[in-house]
Amino acid sequence: MQELQALFKPRSIAVIGVSSNPKKIGYEIFKNIISSGYEGKVYPVNLEGKIVLGFKSFTSISHIPEEIDLAIISIPAAFVIDVVEECGKKGVKALIVISSGFKEIGNIELEERLLSITKKYGMRMLGPNVFGLYYAPSKLNATFGPQKIHPGKIAFITQSGALGIALMEWATMRKIGLSAVISMGNKADIDEADVLDYISHDEDTKAVIIYMEGVRDGRKLMKSLSKVKKPVVIIKSGRSEVGAAAASSHTGSLAGSDIVYSAAFKQSGALRADDLLQAFNWAKLMVMQPPPKSRECVILTNGGGIGVLAADACEKEGLKLSIIPEDLQNELKKIMPIFGSSKNPIDLTGQAGSNEYYNSLRLLIKDDRIDSIILLYCQTAITDPLEISNSILEAYNLAPNKPILVCFLGGEKCEEAMRRLEEASIPTYEMPEHAVSSLAAYCNWKANWKANPTISS
Amino acid sequence: MQELQALFKPRSIAVIGVSSNPKKIGYEIFKNIISSGYEGKVYPVNLEGKIVLGFKSFTSISHIPEEIDLAIISIPAAFVIDVVEECGKKGVKALIVISSGFKEIGNIELEERLLSITKKYGMRMLGPNVFGLYYAPSKLNATFGPQKIHPGKIAFITQSGALGIALMEWATMRKIGLSAVISMGNKADIDEADVLDYISHDEDTKAVIIYMEGVRDGRKLMKSLSKVKKPVVIIKSGRSEVGAAAASSHTGSLAGSDIVYSAAFKQSGALRADDLLQAFNWAKLMVMQPPPKSRECVILTNGGGIGVLAADACEKEGLKLSIIPEDLQNELKKIMPIFGSSKNPIDLTGQAGSNEYYNSLRLLIKDDRIDSIILLYCQTAITDPLEISNSILEAYNLAPNKPILVCFLGGEKCEEAMRRLEEASIPTYEMPEHAVSSLAAYCNWKANWKANPTISS
Repeated sequence: MQELQALFKPRSIAVIGVSSNPKKIGYEIFKNIISSGYEGKVYPVNLEGKIVLGFKSFTSISHIPEEIDLAIISIPAAFVIDVVEECGKKGVKALIVISSGFKEIGNIELEERLLSITKKYGMRMLGPNVFGLYYAPSKLNATFGPQKIHPGKIAFITQSGALGIALMEWATMRKIGLSAVISMGNKADIDEADVLDYISHDEDTKAVIIYMEGVRDGRKLMKSLSKVKKPVVIIKSGRSEVGAAAASSHTGSLAGSDIVYSAAFKQSGALRADDLLQAFNWAKLMVMQPPPKSRECVILTNGGGIGVLAADACEKEGLKLSIIPEDLQNELKKIMPIFGSSKNPIDLTGQAGSNEYYNSLRLLIKDDRIDSIILLYCQTAITDPLEISNSILEAYNLAPNKPILVCFLGGEKCEEAMRRLEEASIPTYEMPEHAVSSLAAYCNWKANWKANPTISS
Repeated sequence: MQELQALFKPRSIAVIGVSSNPKKIGYEIFKNIISSGYEGKVYPVNLEGKIVLGFKSFTSISHIPEEIDLAIISIPAAFVIDVVEECGKKGVKALIVISSGFKEIGNIELEERLLSITKKYGMRMLGPNVFGLYYAPSKLNATFGPQKIHPGKIAFITQSGALGIALMEWATMRKIGLSAVISMGNKADIDEADVLDYISHDEDTKAVIIYMEGVRDGRKLMKSLSKVKKPVVIIKSGRSEVGAAAASSHTGSLAGSDIVYSAAFKQSGALRADDLLQAFNWAKLMVMQPPPKSRECVILTNGGGIGVLAADACEKEGLKLSIIPEDLQNELKKIMPIFGSSKNPIDLTGQAGSNEYYNSLRLLIKDDRIDSIILLYCQTAITDPLEISNSILEAYNLAPNKPILVCFLGGEKCEEAMRRLEEASIPTYEMPEHAVSSLAAYCNWKANWKANPTISS
């Protein structure tokens, strides 16, 4: 774990290949580092010794008068070897090699030479062919992705660069908080397993999402996955024949047999998601709410139809609708009109306003016989989504001790109401099925842990 | 078809039970009608003869000095029978009975009496227990749902009221255009089959979405489905045992065997969607783009990873990646750097800007050997999503003759770019898998038609 300390928590950084041209990657990375609030020292390096963003550049890393923990290299591939040699002599501990032009375009020998130099000097290397690293605890945005990233508790490890940058933008727009984003690139040295070993001890990360196309050392990955005591959600692409061929041409990965991957992930306690949206939907719940006690849940709704859809999804995903005890049903009946339903799904009917939501949710939260709660709301002409969300928050804050997931179906006001709920750590979903799928994934993760002694030990 | 003319295209409307209290449903409906641009005559009716929104109410429909095509009734259930009798005597042709308190709460006899009166006078009835009707060609919003609805080409038929209202809000926020929204309620007289028969001749409707919990007359529905020469997407809930029980308590529907439903829908040429988002994703494509020529498609991307995800989804959904002819590959190679891929998925690489997208899309559009196109874009630091979307529009407008689907992955600017594309009838998707699933659904619809002589005749 200490091995990657210099990568994630460097005391000093040199950015080699910092251009004064704002269109260049080296400039972008340097700008992102100094504007992200990073508290260590940062030194730009370029051959001309230019002034960039008010910083005087050094013409070589060897001229920097202080120790450097991390060097970030963004220069043409042909010059990387010499610069890395210099880094080694300087005593640099970790490298991020942004530069492309190695194994991914067939330059296998160049990549091997690069790796052998890092090994000679005992340096750890991320890359080559990466977009960098974001790590919220160090306030370090050493990427050429977006400048502002919403900090949070999900770590995202990605083999695809374009996908990683685009998803940082996407997650930030949706206010999904990230603790770390790690671009894996060619994985010449550091791979997903190494990153997982580090992240597993990171208190700021509560869940991990990995996008991967191929795995070099399956046994090593399984070992690391088994040791991570937090949910890991994997999107493994190249599932299909055409996808595998495309992955091979993209990152040179051998996709391997898809069934083997699924089995290996499951055995290691990791979850496999169908797509990116699902992965983030799942992880959002896992970082915001405690694990469910059981596979039982209660659906609370103001609309019968949306309740039926959620009930259908529960059966499909392997969740059970709790049987509501009679005394609790009697209490619930007092809150709803006669044509409501105190059975699960609990249907408060379209007449339900914030009082009815508050009172019924309070009953469910206080009752130890009730485990997880899926709360649904259809926008109506006579209720205000923001008032409903306020009443949910009020009831939730009485005892935030069991998983609550929310889906508001409607217009702009529902979006705003859901944003407020997420700010208070109640995960929200566009569709009832997404909420159900997320709760089921959380249950599956817990079950994997219980079933597998090598994981839970 | 003429039978429902008075419902969808009334020359005059009476709203019975118009309150002056803005919190009441009668007020909401009346307000929505007069503010929606409806060009026929509207008469409010209430016992006190109050002035509502500047209109003097009649104390009875019988006092209205002109003919009434459609009466909308929103009064307590106990008074509905007498009022409907009056409507019959007045010569009203169609009714929308908003009032609840009939079969859905066990008042079967009251509903049967209601139905028999409508039959006595030869009136057609929507309801009881509905939220009303929206019909864009008549500029008629006779619902107590949102005042503003984005007009378009998707008709939405819903058995659930709360879901229907919430989805009108949702669709409008997403600028998904609706040609009609029909609340089915208890379906005492008019059912989905009747509505489909009317809609099938409606030139403003290009696709239909139906949310249903149960079917009374399966044979009638299948017949109507088979006659509709446009895509119909069905969300049939109550798939599971718990869901079916919930549906039964919600609308008194007997959900029936789920496998039978799936088979019947397929045989009738209808599509079954897994959830509401998927249904709208599919329908959006079907109203915006021409049907695909074949199951072959081309993926055009600036990111390898997202291309692999789309390729995986294609195999899963039964789409084939076209083999790009060599001469076309040679043309494409001129547009991309050496490490790009001219094979399918076509990877322009992260260096691709608007010129590269324009030139490659132009080649694909112009080439008759290429059928459908799935265009993907990952937001990067060096490209502007809005410029990319402009170049897509420019190329698309050269010959908008084959299906194009777009997914931009990124932040706010991507959202804005996708909004612009949709305004120009290019459907966009949050995730590559959603685009693929939509194209596959369109192919499936076409295949159902070809395979079934009773449909295509």
